[in-house]
Amino acid sequence: MLKFNEEEILSNMRAALALRPEMERILDQVEHEGIRNVCWLGIGGTWASCMQAVVLMKERSAREVFALNAAEYNTTGDRRVGKGTFIVISSVTGTTEEMITAVRKSQEAGAKVLGFVNKVDTPLADMVDWCLTAQQNEQLKFFMVADYLMHLEGVFPDYEKCYQQIDTFVPEGIVAVEKSADDFGRSFAEKHKADALHYFVGAGTLYGATYSYAMCYWEEMHWRRTKSIHSAEFFHGMLEIIDEDTPVTVFIAEDSQRELGLRVKRFLEHYNRNYTIIDTADYPLEGLDPAYRSRISHMIMHAVTNRIDAHMSDLNQHDMSLRRYYRTVKY
Amino acid sequence: MLKFNEEEILSNMRAALALRPEMERILDQVEHEGIRNVCWLGIGGTWASCMQAVVLMKERSAREVFALNAAEYNTTGDRRVGKGTFIVISSVTGTTEEMITAVRKSQEAGAKVLGFVNKVDTPLADMVDWCLTAQQNEQLKFFMVADYLMHLEGVFPDYEKCYQQIDTFVPEGIVAVEKSADDFGRSFAEKHKADALHYFVGAGTLYGATYSYAMCYWEEMHWRRTKSIHSAEFFHGMLEIIDEDTPVTVFIAEDSQRELGLRVKRFLEHYNRNYTIIDTADYPLEGLDPAYRSRISHMIMHAVTNRIDAHMSDLNQHDMSLRRYYRTVKY
Repeated sequence: MLKFNEEEILSNMRAALALRPEMERILDQVEHEGIRNVCWLGIGGTWASCMQAVVLMKERSAREVFALNAAEYNTTGDRRVGKGTFIVISSVTGTTEEMITAVRKSQEAGAKVLGFVNKVDTPLADMVDWCLTAQQNEQLKFFMVADYLMHLEGVFPDYEKCYQQIDTFVPEGIVAVEKSADDFGRSFAEKHKADALHYFVGAGTLYGATYSYAMCYWEEMHWRRTKSIHSAEFFHGMLEIIDEDTPVTVFIAEDSQRELGLRVKRFLEHYNRNYTIIDTADYPLEGLDPAYRSRISHMIMHAVTNRIDAHMSDLNQHDMSLRRYYRTVKY
Repeated sequence: MLKFNEEEILSNMRAALALRPEMERILDQVEHEGIRNVCWLGIGGTWASCMQAVVLMKERSAREVFALNAAEYNTTGDRRVGKGTFIVISSVTGTTEEMITAVRKSQEAGAKVLGFVNKVDTPLADMVDWCLTAQQNEQLKFFMVADYLMHLEGVFPDYEKCYQQIDTFVPEGIVAVEKSADDFGRSFAEKHKADALHYFVGAGTLYGATYSYAMCYWEEMHWRRTKSIHSAEFFHGMLEIIDEDTPVTVFIAEDSQRELGLRVKRFLEHYNRNYTIIDTADYPLEGLDPAYRSRISHMIMHAVTNRIDAHMSDLNQHDMSLRRYYRTVKY
């Protein structure tokens, strides 16, 4: 299978899950010292992941939880960030300049920062109050933190059972999803590889994925034009530019906002003939209770879009690691 | 001047400003009863305005302040909304279905709702705890509430002086801005009226305007394709699809996030030849202290984009009140 390293996927996912005991010890300590509010801090792709973690928590938690864009924080500030603020970040490189500034500013204000930083001996890895390192799976790491915080709050009594199932079944389950999505990925890439503009629509625990798949994958890595929109917002403006042949892809999760995506699907069935629905419910994952599937919708979606990426990149002969501007030229 | 009714603009703006004494009495009462948190609730265009009010407050206020999308609240919920939550909404029609559901749900949870509803005897006007009615100027009304809340909190000591100047100088000042922007509006519309895809970039107290101008004006009213992006996020993906001829417009305000927009401007100066900068600083407004201009950046921008709309609609012979789907067909 094209660009598919099963062993690497499995070992990365298991390494991320293996961070859980240490993460729990850190959160026990933070909770003991007192949490006034929880802040997910990011920019670009990590900002997208922050938005998803907030949706997950907002439904269940009575804590004050918010997502903060690093560049906004560096300029506008946020007076809610201070002593008692528990911040979570993630970084692949450990060097993103807006994040370095924001972490420093938040710590000066009295906040404590947990960082999933994939490279040790980098500025972000050195700055954060606690650093956990494992490759890939940013969203899984964020959900692990969110879920344990909710466990500590007493609003996720199933936590142990849920993560026992995730530990046991999800790594191989996600590999199976990716394999089963390969044919779809190829035909989608063949059909849409040269679209002048592709629309991505999504909601809930997949809104961040919708936003970042459009921006961080198609725009940044494939150099293809996109617009992403929230499934609810689709009906408040964007729908008017939908013609019969407008290319639209809808991401649908098995979470509280599922109905918002299904509504877009029903609209497109009537007024469009060039849409694709990627519904995580179409991908079984053995061993996991249906009630917990909302927690891994993002992983199923990522496994599916990985197959699109592999074939798009191959068909367009476009190396996804190429950048024209980002970290390449000065601006 | 095309589609320009000076008397109507002036009387609408004065009517919005004239709501202030009654609004202050309401907020005095709410503050006296105790505010646990402040929630700006909206969808589509009003959601965009909510985001701007949050940016304005976040910089200065220590209150817990957040924007909530009505459809997200109706599905995912938000446990922070309850007794002690002060909610602000705005509605032109008084009938938006997601808003009706969300207001009811929030009130059942114990929240109190102030509504700027432009039509009396409508569901939303009847449901809200306090209803204030004046046409247009939604963002001004929201900023009036935000500013008085900050005055009550003691973080806006200049409140009286600022609004005395706004009352006295802004209505005629904005009319003068709109007149002075007419030539620009015509030439912009002539150049971009048939763009296959136009990018709008903005930040801070204009990010909502950027989002809603792209979606609620170009997509919904002109049926033209757009993408909007936050000026900071522009550098985390979208920049890679910028060619020399990509049509991009940057909205720049005189607020805390001004630098984020100027950075996009500098990038475009190097790598693009089809960009437009709309900088509110280019439009003088007599009588208003420079320190208060950040509060009316949105009004200046709206006056400028009004001129684009008038000419776009005329040149494309496209009636901006036409809808193909919204409130026209079932879905």
